[in-house]
Amino acid sequence: MILHDIDTRGFASDNYSGIHPEVLTAIAGANHGHQSSYGADVYTERLGEVFRRHFGDTARAFPMLTGTGANVVALQAVCARWGAVVCADSGHINVDEGGAPEKTGGLKLLPVRAENGKLTVRAVQGEAHGFDNQHRAQPQVVSLSQSTELGTVYTPGEIRAITDLAHEHGMYVHMDGSRLANAAVHLDLPLRALTTDVGVDVLSFGGTKNGLMLGEVVVLLNPELDGGIDRLRKTSMQLASKQRFISAQFIALLEGDLWQRNAAHANAMATRLYQAVRRHVDVINPVESNALFVRLPEKALARLHDEFQFYDWNVAAGEARWMTSFDTTPDDVDRFAAAIREICGEA
Amino acid sequence: MILHDIDTRGFASDNYSGIHPEVLTAIAGANHGHQSSYGADVYTERLGEVFRRHFGDTARAFPMLTGTGANVVALQAVCARWGAVVCADSGHINVDEGGAPEKTGGLKLLPVRAENGKLTVRAVQGEAHGFDNQHRAQPQVVSLSQSTELGTVYTPGEIRAITDLAHEHGMYVHMDGSRLANAAVHLDLPLRALTTDVGVDVLSFGGTKNGLMLGEVVVLLNPELDGGIDRLRKTSMQLASKQRFISAQFIALLEGDLWQRNAAHANAMATRLYQAVRRHVDVINPVESNALFVRLPEKALARLHDEFQFYDWNVAAGEARWMTSFDTTPDDVDRFAAAIREICGEA
Amino acid sequence: MILHDIDTRGFASDNYSGIHPEVLTAIAGANHGHQSSYGADVYTERLGEVFRRHFGDTARAFPMLTGTGANVVALQAVCARWGAVVCADSGHINVDEGGAPEKTGGLKLLPVRAENGKLTVRAVQGEAHGFDNQHRAQPQVVSLSQSTELGTVYTPGEIRAITDLAHEHGMYVHMDGSRLANAAVHLDLPLRALTTDVGVDVLSFGGTKNGLMLGEVVVLLNPELDGGIDRLRKTSMQLASKQRFISAQFIALLEGDLWQRNAAHANAMATRLYQAVRRHVDVINPVESNALFVRLPEKALARLHDEFQFYDWNVAAGEARWMTSFDTTPDDVDRFAAAIREICGEA
Amino acid sequence: MILHDIDTRGFASDNYSGIHPEVLTAIAGANHGHQSSYGADVYTERLGEVFRRHFGDTARAFPMLTGTGANVVALQAVCARWGAVVCADSGHINVDEGGAPEKTGGLKLLPVRAENGKLTVRAVQGEAHGFDNQHRAQPQVVSLSQSTELGTVYTPGEIRAITDLAHEHGMYVHMDGSRLANAAVHLDLPLRALTTDVGVDVLSFGGTKNGLMLGEVVVLLNPELDGGIDRLRKTSMQLASKQRFISAQFIALLEGDLWQRNAAHANAMATRLYQAVRRHVDVINPVESNALFVRLPEKALARLHDEFQFYDWNVAAGEARWMTSFDTTPDDVDRFAAAIREICGEA
Repeated sequence: MILHDIDTRGFASDNYSGIHPEVLTAIAGANHGHQSSYGADVYTERLGEVFRRHFGDTARAFPMLTGTGANVVALQAVCARWGAVVCADSGHINVDEGGAPEKTGGLKLLPVRAENGKLTVRAVQGEAHGFDNQHRAQPQVVSLSQSTELGTVYTPGEIRAITDLAHEHGMYVHMDGSRLANAAVHLDLPLRALTTDVGVDVLSFGGTKNGLMLGEVVVLLNPELDGGIDRLRKTSMQLASKQRFISAQFIALLEGDLWQRNAAHANAMATRLYQAVRRHVDVINPVESNALFVRLPEKALARLHDEFQFYDWNVAAGEARWMTSFDTTPDDVDRFAAAIREICGEA
Repeated sequence: MILHDIDTRGFASDNYSGIHPEVLTAIAGANHGHQSSYGADVYTERLGEVFRRHFGDTARAFPMLTGTGANVVALQAVCARWGAVVCADSGHINVDEGGAPEKTGGLKLLPVRAENGKLTVRAVQGEAHGFDNQHRAQPQVVSLSQSTELGTVYTPGEIRAITDLAHEHGMYVHMDGSRLANAAVHLDLPLRALTTDVGVDVLSFGGTKNGLMLGEVVVLLNPELDGGIDRLRKTSMQLASKQRFISAQFIALLEGDLWQRNAAHANAMATRLYQAVRRHVDVINPVESNALFVRLPEKALARLHDEFQFYDWNVAAGEARWMTSFDTTPDDVDRFAAAIREICGEA
Repeated sequence: MILHDIDTRGFASDNYSGIHPEVLTAIAGANHGHQSSYGADVYTERLGEVFRRHFGDTARAFPMLTGTGANVVALQAVCARWGAVVCADSGHINVDEGGAPEKTGGLKLLPVRAENGKLTVRAVQGEAHGFDNQHRAQPQVVSLSQSTELGTVYTPGEIRAITDLAHEHGMYVHMDGSRLANAAVHLDLPLRALTTDVGVDVLSFGGTKNGLMLGEVVVLLNPELDGGIDRLRKTSMQLASKQRFISAQFIALLEGDLWQRNAAHANAMATRLYQAVRRHVDVINPVESNALFVRLPEKALARLHDEFQFYDWNVAAGEARWMTSFDTTPDDVDRFAAAIREICGEA
Repeated sequence: MILHDIDTRGFASDNYSGIHPEVLTAIAGANHGHQSSYGADVYTERLGEVFRRHFGDTARAFPMLTGTGANVVALQAVCARWGAVVCADSGHINVDEGGAPEKTGGLKLLPVRAENGKLTVRAVQGEAHGFDNQHRAQPQVVSLSQSTELGTVYTPGEIRAITDLAHEHGMYVHMDGSRLANAAVHLDLPLRALTTDVGVDVLSFGGTKNGLMLGEVVVLLNPELDGGIDRLRKTSMQLASKQRFISAQFIALLEGDLWQRNAAHANAMATRLYQAVRRHVDVINPVESNALFVRLPEKALARLHDEFQFYDWNVAAGEARWMTSFDTTPDDVDRFAAAIREICGEA
């Protein structure tokens, strides 16, 4: 039963999109017959191989259900009950997860100001103190998002500088990679160049925003870590009984180059939009993945909202986010751009 | 890509099965185009109607991702931070959820002995005290499973007796209905006859074990309750971004009679197995849904395990569980039964 | 057995001091015979009267053991499982409680920049949004400290402006009053003028820093609130079995004017120190209670540390905190001031 | 100010008693002058020595505020986030702590039937399974109470049998020793004979019930454990700022033989009562510490309640608990016994 308009796409979020056809085919392919539940299936076994190919021989992959779930499990795995997590003030864990890290993970966050959404060595350094002070939740983890909530991308060198600092202080580094594919494509680098190779200890690897129905994977990169992730996955209610269908989706994404194709397309659509409107609107952050952050007159935003879906980012400041997806078409972009130019030209 | 044998089915669990074809079709039907994420989509809207039709006009349905997640959210919604939950010692929340109710829900469980998995008025009464005793976690909820972990089924009268007792004491009643469809079919009753109509306040309605890829729904039945379920869903990491695909599956299950067909078939296969082997093995509990609990000689179990998948329930006691599913075929049953008879005839 | 030098006092913290003799006498007075434990004793009953006299007829007092405990219990009483607490970035709950609010209270904090430690209407307004956004922990409480961590004091009007704003948004206001007595004395106002009369909903009233051995009291001021504080006290491990000895201390403090005498003396000693050194050191914040925050050359701080106890507040910035107590003597101050002047004169 | 009758003592609980005079003197002795707060004081340093003398050179002592707090901190120190604790169904952690272990410690309890309050090897063995089963909270700790909630005492051999079993399975053993002194005195053994020497890993050592105003100590006995107890103490809100006064009390108790004198006296008073009434009432459990558990006709209990304080243990069964304390006098016992004999003789 089809209840919706299957031909309309907006610019609200990459999670407004559906399932990439190759991923849906993979779900169908994993169907029929019986497979052991809770991860003891052949698809999850293959998933392990696929992730080792991308992230190195010692990488261990644990499928999860939501991005928030993946983050909370991953952070608990590298943070003692008394630990704290340094993160960007704009980080998803700080502003978009309903307090789940604190409430179900028992994690104290230490948010720091992050220009363009990116942590800096200086900002992390500012929280890297008081390790022996029993009154201060012990800083044990740095968590950074790649790409960031503001659509920007860390270079490998920037990540390495932060992991080096963290490790000097005995801290671990977590990456929220719900859009890691977009970052890797932007930099034209393999996934491991932004993670394993630059000292990231544990990764939340996103699938939902890059064409999956649902699914994220916690990847333990540091071979010295254990962290009881399978246990934390269960207590964090992220363990799917029919896990083969989560794993099969990720195999479809990562065994070939679908992850790259999808991310490259989404990024290209953002760039196309940027090129088409940059002389008409104030683009706030560098466009390095699949989002534009823009500042527009209130009236212009209101008029655009009449016809197109997108998020207001900061109403008071007239800031909006325009996001593209794997299924955004050039035509979608061109019609949106035309409307923007028309409205902003008038404004 | 197909990595597994699509023609073999075992008797381990109904969650070893895959996705019913009508459900997979519904997922495909909800694909393409953009839909608002996190539940603001037309499929979730329709889901609300479908649930109201089954459970009454004031029922409110909240899709979740896992059974454990649904239980923990539902219980938090009816239990203060200082409350406790009376449940069967064999209850899923007590023995199979890795401690998630305690660890992420902050719930104290008060497990009581339950013959055949069923709570009784007397057993609940035994914990219904100390409401004003600050040293005792306040009993605020009774949680029962329908059908139970042991494959048995409460009659409407049995449920009503428990809800009446609970309500007299100001307690709420939660039903873990991960296999509610099997119970309803066994009793030949509509879903509301076992829930809304007999005083259940909040329900975890299962889909995964009855033919879905994944998905459970918390249904708030008591119209006086609010409970912040949408909030708890987020902090409990049960909020799917592309929720349309969870909702679409439930529409496929519940808009027509698929829920009944699937459950009836699974139940019938269990009965068929029971009929075929009851003179050869010791069946422990009444067969009222889609599982047989049996006692067999150790050697017989070992030989059966060589060829068929099923769970040992209590190794020391030689107890095993044989479970059927929506996709179990009569031929599957007959071959299994033949093997049982052969092995047990010899034994 | 006396193991320490009973004649030396420093300027590190008001909790380096001991027990005021009148308080110790009260402990001894409550001794002998049996009294019901866990709060069902005559001293706790009297405590209720004493607090109603200070805070109004509907105030309800719940003795606790630590300041952190009082804050975590009070905040849980006015914050749902999915709620968040707006507080000053320098607030004790944010920086000095080891993450207890997050870890044991499940509270999400929303720290805002606070000049001189004081929240402003504008700062609170900046977080008073997104009430219906399930992705954002719902702002339900504003928590302010009186006096603040930086020794400053809110006027009744400043508090009222914040409580009005909060209540407009359906939020509650919590006051961390571990040094409320010092603030009241500074303003020459009764305790209720800073709490009940200006809309504070729940108060952590401090005793330890004003001459008690240990003890804090959560005071529920808003008569419409219940909040299960007795229950939360138990689960938060703040319920003393021999509670009569906590209550007796507070009776000693509050039945007469000991609370005022102690706070007035501590404040006066801070002022005396300020007067004596203000031309020699850079005093950062207004001196409105019993602490001076100063900026000194590194060498001067090091030399002072040789002889006197005090805390470095911000090592990098050369900032220190000098705190006085109920037992600080004028002579203590004068010797400290002389050393400061000598060292800073040279520097 | 004295508000109560200082000459009447009942049989309700050892925590109805006050402060032993030597302990109060110790509090007074630690008064005056300044001492570093939060445990960096000379009394806490001495406390460490005193505990090492009793429990061995590697024992580490951490003062806490309440028994529940000590238990929750100690258990968290030996239990991962996904772990479970095997305990007696009658254990304080299971029935008298308001759910604090679950709610603030995130601990799953696995209560087992315990005759006379004592765990057995067989009972522990019954829960020592499923270590690799992600659906079961991993059994990581056995917690036993010495003396038990029912007044019984484990012999060193009984404890050793349990610790051996636990350690074979990689589990730790916690002892709730809120009345350890009473058990040691009963067995005429030093404290270490019941703890360090028989393999206990971590101990909650009680003071409040043996003559202190308040105070418990977590003692880490296993030298290979760290567990972050100082951190957990803070997040569990058990860190007293003026800790010298907690430590000084324990020095008074343990540096000499006050702990023995108090416990021996309380035990002797229970025995005296037992001798005086055993022919008139049904004493349920062996009297091995400072409590009698008895069964009486309802009317007899009611008449006794008119004049004496004690707890009904199980109202339905007519069971009561009579508890003695360090300050119970022979005369108190004799008058109570006379009344019992009179009432029960009549009954």
